[in-house]
Amino acid sequence: MNTKICSLLGIEFPLFAFSHCRDVVAAVSRAGGMGVLGAVTLTPAQLEEELRWIDDHVDGKPYGIDVIVPNKIEGKGQAFDAERMVAALPEDHRRFTAELLQRHDVDASDLDTLRRDYLNFGVNLQEGGAGELLDVAFAHPIKLIANALGVPPASMIARAKAEGVPVAALVGTPDHARRQIDAGVDILVAAGGEAGGHCGEVATMVLVPEVVRAVAEAGSEVPVLAAGGIVTGAQMAAAMAMGAAGAWCGSVWLTTAEAETAPAVKEKMLAATSRDTVRSKSRTGKPSRQLRSVWTDAWESGEGPQPLPMPLQSLITEPALAKINKLADGGHEGARTLATYWVGQGVGLMTASRGAGQVVQDFKEDFATAYERLHRLMEG
Amino acid sequence: MNTKICSLLGIEFPLFAFSHCRDVVAAVSRAGGMGVLGAVTLTPAQLEEELRWIDDHVDGKPYGIDVIVPNKIEGKGQAFDAERMVAALPEDHRRFTAELLQRHDVDASDLDTLRRDYLNFGVNLQEGGAGELLDVAFAHPIKLIANALGVPPASMIARAKAEGVPVAALVGTPDHARRQIDAGVDILVAAGGEAGGHCGEVATMVLVPEVVRAVAEAGSEVPVLAAGGIVTGAQMAAAMAMGAAGAWCGSVWLTTAEAETAPAVKEKMLAATSRDTVRSKSRTGKPSRQLRSVWTDAWESGEGPQPLPMPLQSLITEPALAKINKLADGGHEGARTLATYWVGQGVGLMTASRGAGQVVQDFKEDFATAYERLHRLMEG
Repeated sequence: MNTKICSLLGIEFPLFAFSHCRDVVAAVSRAGGMGVLGAVTLTPAQLEEELRWIDDHVDGKPYGIDVIVPNKIEGKGQAFDAERMVAALPEDHRRFTAELLQRHDVDASDLDTLRRDYLNFGVNLQEGGAGELLDVAFAHPIKLIANALGVPPASMIARAKAEGVPVAALVGTPDHARRQIDAGVDILVAAGGEAGGHCGEVATMVLVPEVVRAVAEAGSEVPVLAAGGIVTGAQMAAAMAMGAAGAWCGSVWLTTAEAETAPAVKEKMLAATSRDTVRSKSRTGKPSRQLRSVWTDAWESGEGPQPLPMPLQSLITEPALAKINKLADGGHEGARTLATYWVGQGVGLMTASRGAGQVVQDFKEDFATAYERLHRLMEG
Repeated sequence: MNTKICSLLGIEFPLFAFSHCRDVVAAVSRAGGMGVLGAVTLTPAQLEEELRWIDDHVDGKPYGIDVIVPNKIEGKGQAFDAERMVAALPEDHRRFTAELLQRHDVDASDLDTLRRDYLNFGVNLQEGGAGELLDVAFAHPIKLIANALGVPPASMIARAKAEGVPVAALVGTPDHARRQIDAGVDILVAAGGEAGGHCGEVATMVLVPEVVRAVAEAGSEVPVLAAGGIVTGAQMAAAMAMGAAGAWCGSVWLTTAEAETAPAVKEKMLAATSRDTVRSKSRTGKPSRQLRSVWTDAWESGEGPQPLPMPLQSLITEPALAKINKLADGGHEGARTLATYWVGQGVGLMTASRGAGQVVQDFKEDFATAYERLHRLMEG
């Protein structure tokens, strides 16, 4: 397609793949879309390794990275103190998690030790930590940098502009969109409430035209990508009929052959219906949509503690869930019932594992079929 | 448009207007869409009067009616006893409502008297009550009969088939769709969670392709209308790109010039954003999406009683809200903060009052514009 955003980024088809898996990123970019590597949990050294691998496997096609630099966060502005952060975790939350694991025959005695492996997330959420990631990223030929939560700091936008790299930002309301435009972002990602991961309340079908309208009313020409529930080319065509410049997808890559999603979770996702997700604060402290499981049901039951603010809640949940998903892959029954990961309602339409490049091809064909439907209505 | 559903119903443009207001129904049908009168709160005599008026004002164009005949309901199978039903309302619910009104300077002393005017809803939810409405409806040239909640009873479907009137039914999941197909309905309305009134959890962007796929997998050719959040022609085009046969809309008519929506509520709707709705059981006992107000906030606060099963909760809420909305129209400040009505997230895109016929024209133009967007992408 010969659109503004395709020219801006040098891509053929405006389908974006947010993924933590470098193989997915490279495969999507090679297939004509744009892979965007989720970098928030990586150390600078890990990011360097991932981007070097992508450079070697992307055939010179454009790709991007995704970070989280929220405007308001627990402990922002203070020097990051990992020990202090782990020590600040309330006993209630540790105990609730441990008891939940034990009830399903999962040993919980090593959770505090495991927590120490999950501190990068907290580090990267600080402006200083994100800065080190950016140093690494800008040393590679990235063509897009996205901020997944809130308005990026002025320093990040200024630096990206100096490097000639467009900045994208996720928004869940027209108000967010106006603030992002004022801050100078180049691309908006309107993420509906059906999206996996952090999401707002307004559904994609309403949010996309609302954000498109807000952009026009602001006299801006910033392109708007649609996110939330989109796992097929027909849905992408639908979003673009409403004025979106393309589709930003996360969930659909999770069940691809290349994805590093825990096999037990992949299997659950392929079997899940669109009703098998839940939007909950229990994983990160902010509302995010996840595959429903015994784990999410327990946190949503009202019997546990209230989620901690970001990033503390992640230090409670991520080590436990990493352990659970690993055990589930090994066939541990209790762990299988607990296993979960972020995914959107589109999971109901994801019923077979494919290669990531094949997903891009399927999107293109399905997009064309959807267009033909409207073409027959209008011209037939 | 020359589509299957247009031929089936004798309409020009597959835009459906669910409305309690006969003027909207007639205006939409005259403009080439299809008006569908919400009849569940009417007595047979009232329905007779409404349909006679529509017959006189619809220029021979097709229109339909919408009833609610749920499969499972409190008191179903028993003879309907209005006195017993009012007497069964718990003191907690009466008191919570009365105190909420009093806190906002609304006299609550007459609520029990007002309740007696709201018993039709309960009567019509019984199979016998609905049967009397159907007697009236089938004596008029209705071209569609819709059931808004659950699978219609076999008797209703058999009767409609005998009369040659297609039956539509609302569904919120692919499972619902399969059950409706098995029961023999002719048209499915896939209603996403962003819809006003009773709605499920799955967003329109996901539900529509999921139901379209379920229909195909069932070997059925039943057309699927998309509902939930749709207030523009571009959204309608989006839904049809995903395989929908048309759009079923409720909210967009509420702010039209013809609508009998309380003016104070209309004004609130035109000012509301897409975040100003809430999905709550507090109005009818089943989840329904409403304009947020001091009333819905109070019921959602967790400090009040749990909603009663349908139709009892409506006997608590409807008399109070009818009184509130009337006072709000008269300028009563407390009543204005409480005033609310069902509406979907699309309310955020509804910013100006128009005639209902004009809304249909705007849909047609906006649909064509949306098609042109895709056409330029594919052919340009």
